[in-house]
Amino acid sequence: MGADGPLARTLAALPLVDHHCHGVVTAGLDRAGFESLLTEGAAWPGVSPFDTPVGVAVRRHCAPLLDLPRHAPAEEYVDRRAGLGAAEVNRRLLSAAGTEVFCVDTGFGPDGLTTAGQLAEAAGAGAVAYEVVRLEGVAEAVATAGVEPDEYAGVFESAAWAAVRRPGVVAVKSVAAYRTGFDLDPARPTDAEVTGAAGRWLARGGGRLADPVLMRHLLWTAVGLGLPLQLHTGFGDNDIRLHRSDPTHLTDWLHLTSGTVPVMLLHCWPYQRQAAYLAAVFEQVYLDVGLALHHVGPGRARAVLAEATEITPFRKLLYSSDAYGVAEFHLLGALAFRRGLAALLQERVDSDELSLPDALRIARWAGRDNARRVYRFTDDT
Amino acid sequence: MGADGPLARTLAALPLVDHHCHGVVTAGLDRAGFESLLTEGAAWPGVSPFDTPVGVAVRRHCAPLLDLPRHAPAEEYVDRRAGLGAAEVNRRLLSAAGTEVFCVDTGFGPDGLTTAGQLAEAAGAGAVAYEVVRLEGVAEAVATAGVEPDEYAGVFESAAWAAVRRPGVVAVKSVAAYRTGFDLDPARPTDAEVTGAAGRWLARGGGRLADPVLMRHLLWTAVGLGLPLQLHTGFGDNDIRLHRSDPTHLTDWLHLTSGTVPVMLLHCWPYQRQAAYLAAVFEQVYLDVGLALHHVGPGRARAVLAEATEITPFRKLLYSSDAYGVAEFHLLGALAFRRGLAALLQERVDSDELSLPDALRIARWAGRDNARRVYRFTDDT
Amino acid sequence: MGADGPLARTLAALPLVDHHCHGVVTAGLDRAGFESLLTEGAAWPGVSPFDTPVGVAVRRHCAPLLDLPRHAPAEEYVDRRAGLGAAEVNRRLLSAAGTEVFCVDTGFGPDGLTTAGQLAEAAGAGAVAYEVVRLEGVAEAVATAGVEPDEYAGVFESAAWAAVRRPGVVAVKSVAAYRTGFDLDPARPTDAEVTGAAGRWLARGGGRLADPVLMRHLLWTAVGLGLPLQLHTGFGDNDIRLHRSDPTHLTDWLHLTSGTVPVMLLHCWPYQRQAAYLAAVFEQVYLDVGLALHHVGPGRARAVLAEATEITPFRKLLYSSDAYGVAEFHLLGALAFRRGLAALLQERVDSDELSLPDALRIARWAGRDNARRVYRFTDDT
Repeated sequence: MGADGPLARTLAALPLVDHHCHGVVTAGLDRAGFESLLTEGAAWPGVSPFDTPVGVAVRRHCAPLLDLPRHAPAEEYVDRRAGLGAAEVNRRLLSAAGTEVFCVDTGFGPDGLTTAGQLAEAAGAGAVAYEVVRLEGVAEAVATAGVEPDEYAGVFESAAWAAVRRPGVVAVKSVAAYRTGFDLDPARPTDAEVTGAAGRWLARGGGRLADPVLMRHLLWTAVGLGLPLQLHTGFGDNDIRLHRSDPTHLTDWLHLTSGTVPVMLLHCWPYQRQAAYLAAVFEQVYLDVGLALHHVGPGRARAVLAEATEITPFRKLLYSSDAYGVAEFHLLGALAFRRGLAALLQERVDSDELSLPDALRIARWAGRDNARRVYRFTDDT
Repeated sequence: MGADGPLARTLAALPLVDHHCHGVVTAGLDRAGFESLLTEGAAWPGVSPFDTPVGVAVRRHCAPLLDLPRHAPAEEYVDRRAGLGAAEVNRRLLSAAGTEVFCVDTGFGPDGLTTAGQLAEAAGAGAVAYEVVRLEGVAEAVATAGVEPDEYAGVFESAAWAAVRRPGVVAVKSVAAYRTGFDLDPARPTDAEVTGAAGRWLARGGGRLADPVLMRHLLWTAVGLGLPLQLHTGFGDNDIRLHRSDPTHLTDWLHLTSGTVPVMLLHCWPYQRQAAYLAAVFEQVYLDVGLALHHVGPGRARAVLAEATEITPFRKLLYSSDAYGVAEFHLLGALAFRRGLAALLQERVDSDELSLPDALRIARWAGRDNARRVYRFTDDT
Repeated sequence: MGADGPLARTLAALPLVDHHCHGVVTAGLDRAGFESLLTEGAAWPGVSPFDTPVGVAVRRHCAPLLDLPRHAPAEEYVDRRAGLGAAEVNRRLLSAAGTEVFCVDTGFGPDGLTTAGQLAEAAGAGAVAYEVVRLEGVAEAVATAGVEPDEYAGVFESAAWAAVRRPGVVAVKSVAAYRTGFDLDPARPTDAEVTGAAGRWLARGGGRLADPVLMRHLLWTAVGLGLPLQLHTGFGDNDIRLHRSDPTHLTDWLHLTSGTVPVMLLHCWPYQRQAAYLAAVFEQVYLDVGLALHHVGPGRARAVLAEATEITPFRKLLYSSDAYGVAEFHLLGALAFRRGLAALLQERVDSDELSLPDALRIARWAGRDNARRVYRFTDDT
């Protein structure tokens, strides 16, 4: 429906801002390697990650870009992918995604991945990339470098400032959802609390930061840095306790930090309505449904977007892919977003619930302009 | 689909019972004033409340009632609204809503709003209004008037009885969802507990009631009054901790109070399925999806109603608008309910899952007769 | 849509494995008796259980199998049902369900119900039945038979082993969702903890097992038995605290028990997305949307299945009816599953998001082959 209507054409042609994604693997991938990147789970005996909604979507939408027929078998797909080589595959898929700006979280498993700049280069057509600093990585590096407990707060804050002052950094990110969940005491911890918690963490040798006091300290430090704060919410791998990643647990913290920095709720599924509520009642809250878009596939993205947009102010919805590792995800995220949103808006226009000019404006806002407004890419970053 | 089928015609013509709403502003509204009432958030710089699903719905469905073209620009809409004057706007929109009975919660920000009687008068066509007593307001007035801690329980109970014995009162309401959430100890508090909690509250000068013991006492007092108890659940402004307003947290309390009064779960979004579960397994529980209806707009109301009605017994679904402040919401709530439910039922009839007579009966029950059955308007109230 | 397409035909003809259901009443039922089985609530004055989505579905889809017109009135339906007699009604409805394998939970209210063997016999056409052992029933029988607290753990474990070694047993089941919910300490309790808790329980005379320590012990004992473990999640009667039956509360326990037995999340509604998440990230997790299928009816089953399958690996979705008491539910569960899944898959094929061979494979996996793979019915059970 509306596959060649004005909304579909506009969204198909719109250069997107992907306000949260990761790099892609630069080496060639065999079937096992590709499959392990295709799932938020793992590759299990007898259950191919291709036998999933996202696996089907790869064979449907990515295969033709590698000169294969639609719905090509998985084996042919990975063979052809290997034959073309990673650079060519990445170039084809990333350029087909039609993304003009990538905001790249370089803090998760960056070894063997493209840098932000390499990702944009592979996409071609003047695409540019900015960087998102993952604050847990900064904190863990501070511990690794060695610090006294009572100096931790100051050293971490200095390191965070140093990280965000680098050219091209447009946002910070926290994965508190993975580490503690959001049902935290919303108050800023005292200096003594931070020193005590840092002492216990450092005494264990640092490593993965999951202490609730230090996580609160990290979130409050983020607020002071002045950049938009991206928060992973909802769906992820099995490190998540999903119910604790419902972003409404942040309500008290959002009250306390009102008037400071934009808070970008990433992904959100299956809590997209909860995220929409927050975006509707807190000035600083924005959301996307990245990650879910490619995992549910273009055939279901419209339904997820429909829930995400039920009450969300039109200036509060952004696009992200949250693609990681394989360029298939950058392509599928963009495709699912364009098609899902176009179908959704076109239906509203067809039933005269929405005027076409309004629908086109909403499409451009969600795909590009809202992100430009929040991140101010035109500033001298 | 089915826009002029028998379900659509029947629901378009059905006089509705709006079992929970508020009055409308009697003064004229400038753009800022109108926009501030259009959102559960606030008017934020650069983000007009018109740029939301409900804003689009106002321009689409209300503009023609003010002699403007469909999808008129926001500026023209507020200008025309101001030019016509509040009384004429309210008359046009309220009469177009086709509501025959309004149950009006007069306990939230009533200054400058129509009374229940004025609301019905503006709607014309013999519409009548009944009153819903907000118990937190009664309790707070008791504190303001001055009371000793050990007398609080008795004085509050007497005041509640006095309030509900006034002519035209058909229900009581609690906003416990806003004040404490529903994850309360379900047991009736002891006298000593109430006195202790009242002492602490009164020592602070009373004011906004949010003490968990006093909230439990309020809910248990409500049970004794014999009238249907309306409970706000789910979506609201940012005073809500949404996850604590999931009505399934009330399960133990519903067991303890079984056999007493009807419990009307208001709004419920995004917990409409949780509310439907409670309505399916507790005799005394009913639900509506008010507030959500106009905020998501007629284009999406069907999907929300479809979830709300998945397992809900047909005698358990009611209509409310939860409109507050602007008559646009009374109109849009009614329109979204009529069209959403008609589309939903017509589809079932078209696929022969439901007979037309059954569908028509369900429509009349949900829009009017279920409320009449619960509230017994024909009694001498 | 697609009511006679290849997916509809394939699914209509597919012999299903109903991996979780119960027996049906062998005696005749009057209206009150039938209505009491039609609802997860109770029969309330003035609110017939026929006035529900499932009641409408019975009149639509079961009436013709009893030689009545579609949408026959409730009174005619129960009269005709009584006239035909339970055995004939059960034969007609169960054979129409087209189920080839029933996995029967015989642990809930089995008096007056068909045994597993009788259920299969009534279904005819070579249908076979296996048994699912409800572990709470085993534990409660141990208490009834008399046991010392410090022997409880050993005696329960022996009894569980004896129960699962009987011929035809293919799985165990826990109703922890009803008894404690899933927000339990995930760790295996110590011997001393179990003895202490058993002492308190036995001192009260045993009975309904709802002690958190003993429930944890039961779940950990289940893991040692080596058979798939079925867990009721989500929707049920009003003994459930729905929010505590969200299966994501099991995440820590799933980590601790990884690599042991398959965990079959039953029903799941309204947490089908949460269940899908777990199935996507834990190798051992599977899910179905039984119970919901007949309660929402064939008209809405597609929407529930669409959410359940958004990210679920195709080898992780199973079919169950969770039918109890009346064969109408075995029929409606099967019908809703076949039609809902067919409509869902056909739409994906029609929009070329999915190839027809893939869709047919997914249909066969979900309806039959995934269950065969997990339960290994061909083993000598």
